[in-house]
Amino acid sequence: MSYTVSMDIYEQSLQLHKDKKGKITIALRGEVTPDTLKQFYSPGVAEASRYATNSAEKLREVSWTNNLVAVISDGSAVLGLGDIGPEGAMPVMEGKAMLFKHFADVDAVPIVLNVHTADEIVETVQRIAPSFGGINLEDIAAPKCFEIEERLKASLDIPVFHDDQHGTAVVTLAGLINAAKLAGKAIKQLRVVVAGAGSAGVAVAKLFALYGVEDIVMVDSKGIISGERDDLNPQKQELVSLNTRNRSGSLNDAVEGADVFIGVSKAGLLTPDMVRAMADKPIIFAMANPDPEILPEVALEAGAFVIATGRSDYPNQINNVLGFPGIFRGALDNGVTKITDEHKLAAAEALAALVENPTPDKIIPGPFDEGVVEAVANSIK
Amino acid sequence: MSYTVSMDIYEQSLQLHKDKKGKITIALRGEVTPDTLKQFYSPGVAEASRYATNSAEKLREVSWTNNLVAVISDGSAVLGLGDIGPEGAMPVMEGKAMLFKHFADVDAVPIVLNVHTADEIVETVQRIAPSFGGINLEDIAAPKCFEIEERLKASLDIPVFHDDQHGTAVVTLAGLINAAKLAGKAIKQLRVVVAGAGSAGVAVAKLFALYGVEDIVMVDSKGIISGERDDLNPQKQELVSLNTRNRSGSLNDAVEGADVFIGVSKAGLLTPDMVRAMADKPIIFAMANPDPEILPEVALEAGAFVIATGRSDYPNQINNVLGFPGIFRGALDNGVTKITDEHKLAAAEALAALVENPTPDKIIPGPFDEGVVEAVANSIK
Repeated sequence: MSYTVSMDIYEQSLQLHKDKKGKITIALRGEVTPDTLKQFYSPGVAEASRYATNSAEKLREVSWTNNLVAVISDGSAVLGLGDIGPEGAMPVMEGKAMLFKHFADVDAVPIVLNVHTADEIVETVQRIAPSFGGINLEDIAAPKCFEIEERLKASLDIPVFHDDQHGTAVVTLAGLINAAKLAGKAIKQLRVVVAGAGSAGVAVAKLFALYGVEDIVMVDSKGIISGERDDLNPQKQELVSLNTRNRSGSLNDAVEGADVFIGVSKAGLLTPDMVRAMADKPIIFAMANPDPEILPEVALEAGAFVIATGRSDYPNQINNVLGFPGIFRGALDNGVTKITDEHKLAAAEALAALVENPTPDKIIPGPFDEGVVEAVANSIK
Repeated sequence: MSYTVSMDIYEQSLQLHKDKKGKITIALRGEVTPDTLKQFYSPGVAEASRYATNSAEKLREVSWTNNLVAVISDGSAVLGLGDIGPEGAMPVMEGKAMLFKHFADVDAVPIVLNVHTADEIVETVQRIAPSFGGINLEDIAAPKCFEIEERLKASLDIPVFHDDQHGTAVVTLAGLINAAKLAGKAIKQLRVVVAGAGSAGVAVAKLFALYGVEDIVMVDSKGIISGERDDLNPQKQELVSLNTRNRSGSLNDAVEGADVFIGVSKAGLLTPDMVRAMADKPIIFAMANPDPEILPEVALEAGAFVIATGRSDYPNQINNVLGFPGIFRGALDNGVTKITDEHKLAAAEALAALVENPTPDKIIPGPFDEGVVEAVANSIK
């Protein structure tokens, strides 16, 4: 059943990376001449330095920090590749910087770290933070990613955003809003299963709950996360409260009668029989990359009402690029220093509203649709 | 006697910084389309990540690290402004990145740190080092700058270069080579006074000694650095050995009969009487910024044979921009991971040789002269 991306795209991609020698470069905002040199650099620059001394706010007036985000990873949870370290992470982080620039004209610099504990990562980001106007954390393994983000948010005066968590949650919620509307189901009545309790799954479940979903059952590799389990870390213990009907058991038990399946787990996890066991008009977001929990054609044949994936070669791509460019564009432009739950909910609603007439094949905008960045940016204020 | 740069240039510079909102920005090496997105980013990028995993060398084949330098400062010794911290330092570091790009097409990212001990700075740079192909240290106070550079050179496999030391030394030596030739004086016979024993003065004196100057007297705010002093830190104790004739006393004592005065100290330090007390055909590099140790017109009237400054509005500008762009261009292109004394000497000779017919008004190329970066880059191999 499993579908594999053809080797061609990987070979082509590697060749393209070698040909281009990377994806981003530095460009200049002005021309360097004997005359401008005195103003952009010594001696004139001394005045900009005096002006900015001890003030991140004034620095943003006179330097690129007003438009600058660091994309930071230790490479501990990269794509589907796992813990591949800083060098392995860099092509992904540089790609993210490319997307920031292309979609939202945000300058982003990829910074990969060769330290891996929460303490070291927090400390390092704090030390370099004056260089940036925002921090996008990326591909850092759970559960340390939760602590790292919380500590950085608490200690820095610039927006800090772990995209694997919140970017995924925002875009997924946008899709859910339109899918539920199409299915004629009220958000409050939805029974949702989230398969995968890593950074994305946790954030999706929490944002869904904030939006009003009252019955969320999370499933990890050992089954339903419930009060009966004695193997839960503190992060997972928090999730027990979302399981309001106190369900326990396996994934099979979880999906029976569920309205929504959200997969941020692994290829092939969801079988056609499980789809058939779901409630009427099942909504399935199978977002494992590159191979989803169930292929769209298989899900539809088993009765799925809406199927979304993380892939661009099927309809309904749940893609983080719908979120992070606009979220940082808005934060930087509007002087937002903390991205709150309210911001995330507003961004999800803004994204959902961009699809004027949702259909089962179009519950979410595409990355190249007009107005995406603007709509999201306007919700971060 | 002191000359002050008119306020106009400072006001204009601040306004220019505000208008441009910084000096550098990110640009893309390729176009982002639905098709290229799959190759530059998910899923194709996974192959570049797999390829680069655990290999900085392979990463340089597929990412911008092959052309990327971090310009790193804690803001502890910025221009003539002193310890102004990371925010104050940023406009200068961003300016440096601008010069890297303009003169040598090197991508450079300014990173300012809000930690200030040698241990913390070394540790932080080590942690982010996988993100870069080279490290340019900048405006870090002496004496910690010496230890920081040494420890980073020893621990990292990419070029590490403290420009305030070695960039200044390379360009100053280039000027000395041509000035001595013009004056008909042999390098070995020169009596040199270096006023200022900060990072630049120390590096200039050491490189001069390596080039063959046998009599170098350094002077700090307390007088000649000699074996008689009991207030010398370890770095300054090392300099005593350059003072081969065991001179002691004041700056007045030092300059009497000297062939060369190198000033990296403060405005107005060198008086016309001191110039008159020097040997025949005195060579004076008065490089304090923005106001030199002696103004060129004053030095010439007192009998100077060659006068150089750090300023662009007089002949013979001893400007670091003649050095660092080509030094890193060469290191990156030629896979040089340690910039050695031999590299610095070769770069100085290459710079000196660019002036085919030196005159007292032209001992050194100008920053915008043809061939500067190429000549320097070719000497770093």
